[in-house]
Amino acid sequence: MIYMGHSMSEQNGSFTGYYFSFKGTVRALLRGSGQVMFQESAYTGLLILVGIFWGAYSASVPQIAWGALLGLAASTFAGWIIGEYRQDGEQGLWGFNGILVGCAFPTFLEPVPLMWVSLVCCAMLTTWMRRGFNNVTAQFKINSLTFPFVFLTWTFLLSARVLTATPLADMNSPALIVHIGGQIDWSIGSFAIYWLKGISQVFLINNWITGIIFLIALGVCSIWAAIYAAMSSAIALLVAVLFAADPADVTAGLFGFSPVLTGIALGTTFYKVSWKSAIWTVAGVVATVFIQAGMDTLMLPWGMPTLTAPFCIATWLFLLPLYKMDDTSNPDMTVWKGQKK
Amino acid sequence: MIYMGHSMSEQNGSFTGYYFSFKGTVRALLRGSGQVMFQESAYTGLLILVGIFWGAYSASVPQIAWGALLGLAASTFAGWIIGEYRQDGEQGLWGFNGILVGCAFPTFLEPVPLMWVSLVCCAMLTTWMRRGFNNVTAQFKINSLTFPFVFLTWTFLLSARVLTATPLADMNSPALIVHIGGQIDWSIGSFAIYWLKGISQVFLINNWITGIIFLIALGVCSIWAAIYAAMSSAIALLVAVLFAADPADVTAGLFGFSPVLTGIALGTTFYKVSWKSAIWTVAGVVATVFIQAGMDTLMLPWGMPTLTAPFCIATWLFLLPLYKMDDTSNPDMTVWKGQKK
Amino acid sequence: MIYMGHSMSEQNGSFTGYYFSFKGTVRALLRGSGQVMFQESAYTGLLILVGIFWGAYSASVPQIAWGALLGLAASTFAGWIIGEYRQDGEQGLWGFNGILVGCAFPTFLEPVPLMWVSLVCCAMLTTWMRRGFNNVTAQFKINSLTFPFVFLTWTFLLSARVLTATPLADMNSPALIVHIGGQIDWSIGSFAIYWLKGISQVFLINNWITGIIFLIALGVCSIWAAIYAAMSSAIALLVAVLFAADPADVTAGLFGFSPVLTGIALGTTFYKVSWKSAIWTVAGVVATVFIQAGMDTLMLPWGMPTLTAPFCIATWLFLLPLYKMDDTSNPDMTVWKGQKK
Repeated sequence: MIYMGHSMSEQNGSFTGYYFSFKGTVRALLRGSGQVMFQESAYTGLLILVGIFWGAYSASVPQIAWGALLGLAASTFAGWIIGEYRQDGEQGLWGFNGILVGCAFPTFLEPVPLMWVSLVCCAMLTTWMRRGFNNVTAQFKINSLTFPFVFLTWTFLLSARVLTATPLADMNSPALIVHIGGQIDWSIGSFAIYWLKGISQVFLINNWITGIIFLIALGVCSIWAAIYAAMSSAIALLVAVLFAADPADVTAGLFGFSPVLTGIALGTTFYKVSWKSAIWTVAGVVATVFIQAGMDTLMLPWGMPTLTAPFCIATWLFLLPLYKMDDTSNPDMTVWKGQKK
Repeated sequence: MIYMGHSMSEQNGSFTGYYFSFKGTVRALLRGSGQVMFQESAYTGLLILVGIFWGAYSASVPQIAWGALLGLAASTFAGWIIGEYRQDGEQGLWGFNGILVGCAFPTFLEPVPLMWVSLVCCAMLTTWMRRGFNNVTAQFKINSLTFPFVFLTWTFLLSARVLTATPLADMNSPALIVHIGGQIDWSIGSFAIYWLKGISQVFLINNWITGIIFLIALGVCSIWAAIYAAMSSAIALLVAVLFAADPADVTAGLFGFSPVLTGIALGTTFYKVSWKSAIWTVAGVVATVFIQAGMDTLMLPWGMPTLTAPFCIATWLFLLPLYKMDDTSNPDMTVWKGQKK
Repeated sequence: MIYMGHSMSEQNGSFTGYYFSFKGTVRALLRGSGQVMFQESAYTGLLILVGIFWGAYSASVPQIAWGALLGLAASTFAGWIIGEYRQDGEQGLWGFNGILVGCAFPTFLEPVPLMWVSLVCCAMLTTWMRRGFNNVTAQFKINSLTFPFVFLTWTFLLSARVLTATPLADMNSPALIVHIGGQIDWSIGSFAIYWLKGISQVFLINNWITGIIFLIALGVCSIWAAIYAAMSSAIALLVAVLFAADPADVTAGLFGFSPVLTGIALGTTFYKVSWKSAIWTVAGVVATVFIQAGMDTLMLPWGMPTLTAPFCIATWLFLLPLYKMDDTSNPDMTVWKGQKK
């Protein structure tokens, strides 16, 4: 695949024409993978893809790994054909919603041909809808985060109960009562596994080795991001256990993935690392656990997954007051590391 | 009924006093009917009313036709008594939500006296709430479209399950599982009927002749609007069939009415007709089908109809990015044909 | 407890340092109690607390009264430690969401230790989230009202179905069908009780004497507030009975509390008292009853209480059009009596 960018005259006042770059394309794609965890690093993105492939093949669901790649490519391609701001694409901001669509569709839907067509279309839409959602959220000085992925995946999964040509695979049945099941193993080793699965589940992967790979992936770009990810998954695990959450979810790391993203977002991306921002971030991480649990209940009547919505909501809640943590922090919360508005 | 307008000094700097005009009143009312499909034409509005009366009397539910007239009158009257911008009223922008309330209430509720009182009150509220919703959506450079109708009708129908004095008529029972029923007839003639019913359902009419009348109504004002309406209903029908939608809904045209509105809105109202905007519109029309199906699932636990919400959501999604399709298109998406902000 | 305020240099250009004042602390707390009903008066707040204690002890649920005090203290304290605008705190605007959290948690949850910890944390969050929600609603020239309380309490109660360490006490079971029960007693005396309970339920108290105390509490600060509260509860009662609402809810005053708040908000707080604003307020109060009934249906699948959401939604709907009722009314609806933006 060839990356073809063209600069927009609206943005920088000059039209530099089209260009082709294999290296640039690969870098934009890999950064798209890294930007799910807010890292503008092709190496981070590459390691994340390694983690996804490891986890998907270990669980004998290779379609999730290839879906991730396909979603990443489609959403990045979509940014190019619509003429989105080139800089966003170079920083990987076209692809991070698309790769999540690519992980989610083959997880929750049967791998029939129409599913693959839909995956490509929805991944492309995430890039365009991201522009629209950002136009809304920018009014409140926040960013749409992964909400384009959440919104489009929810819409498609809901529609799939009526449009029966794309059958559902691994989805809960609609219900009114929470089903509490499974059992927590109280050994340290098991807790380490739950903790690491909390990190791997960011990409819907249930595999502790993938969790380690993701931590390394973060570390090669930002040691603080790795620390906050590790810390957030641990805090979320403790809070979930303390409040006696559903063991089946705790042991699968399903209380960890949104807090991990909240932790990286608040602690290292939108606020600078400091004691003040660390305390605020911990509050946000704990809040994410309750929002996760609340949304688990909220989604019951449709048997729908929450995806990363708890992360979006919690991060928005803790950014919206626009509290300053230090004199230099940027009051415009729409901007994240490496992102120009 | 007498139309009584008064200009607002806030708006145009001069107070020209009250005036009475039978002709102006009738024209404002008929335009209100036409504006549901974005046409500021009294002839379009008149033909739409003919189509509604034909469909309602054919189905032995005359209360829907008279409800439409009553809702149209009440909402237009409401604009006058509150002192809304006179120009909006003259362009039919006071009445288009009200006529939909007037179609929906007698469809979903028993025609008891309190229903008629509620219909009038809710139709009036649409005009006032439209101002409020527009104040919100204008921040994002979009228009509230038919959302005042959707919001108030949802609220009233939900309340009617608790306030038992206005009993529900033709409503689904609350459920968790989608009921798939009916059967598609694969003849060309049947498909033509499904296609035309997709257009008539814009006003909750299930009648293919009404669909033809509506197409003519559009054509007398804008041939492009008629073409986009016809095309959008056809595309929606094909997508619904391709993705194996519930046959009962497909055959009643229930996958068509929101895409029809999306098609007219995107293809001819907010964007100028062009190849670029046509492609974008087709994407929006296809997206509307999935949003429709998703909302059908979403509404199950309350047995509620989606009304035109899928149209609103899809149109907003495809306007919010504010992509320019040509050099002259208006970047302020709050404005539609014949509407000054 | 000691009130410690510090002025913010961002706000008034000068840093006057910390100060301690027992009297100031008590006054800020009591005003927080009064501001639930929009009264910046420590006497009103004190009488409201008396009413809460009377009602809670009468019903043998003292934990609700002490929860109210605890929530009030925690949310006021939260404003101080985060360095919120001091003036807001002095006017009681830090505490009004917190006292409602303090009433709601012991009502709907078992009084286990973790519930009390959660109550304090959520009460504190209301103060911070209020800043965030106000940053959003200010774009539309409205105020977040009691929505921080509603949002956080909903989230926690939903989460408590999954996080089983804080068991639910007095909550409905999730259901799809409305349960209509109880019986209305048609005597004047009974109606007076229903009417007064509609007022006491603002603080989740089901006690007609508390209703009288609340009316007196309003009257000592603003006779108009008392009149509008009384009138709104009466109108809501009549509309609920006319539309044959669920008798169990009518007799417990559950159709009254949101309209009472809507009445005070629209009639005396955001609009000046006048004939025009009175008519608009009555429309808003009636609308609140239908929004209440609609949300009762909406909440069924989770067995959740609506809390004061119907009040928020109705008040927003009737403020958003920004209609002017007289020449001097403030078009910025974010401001209420005694509140500088």
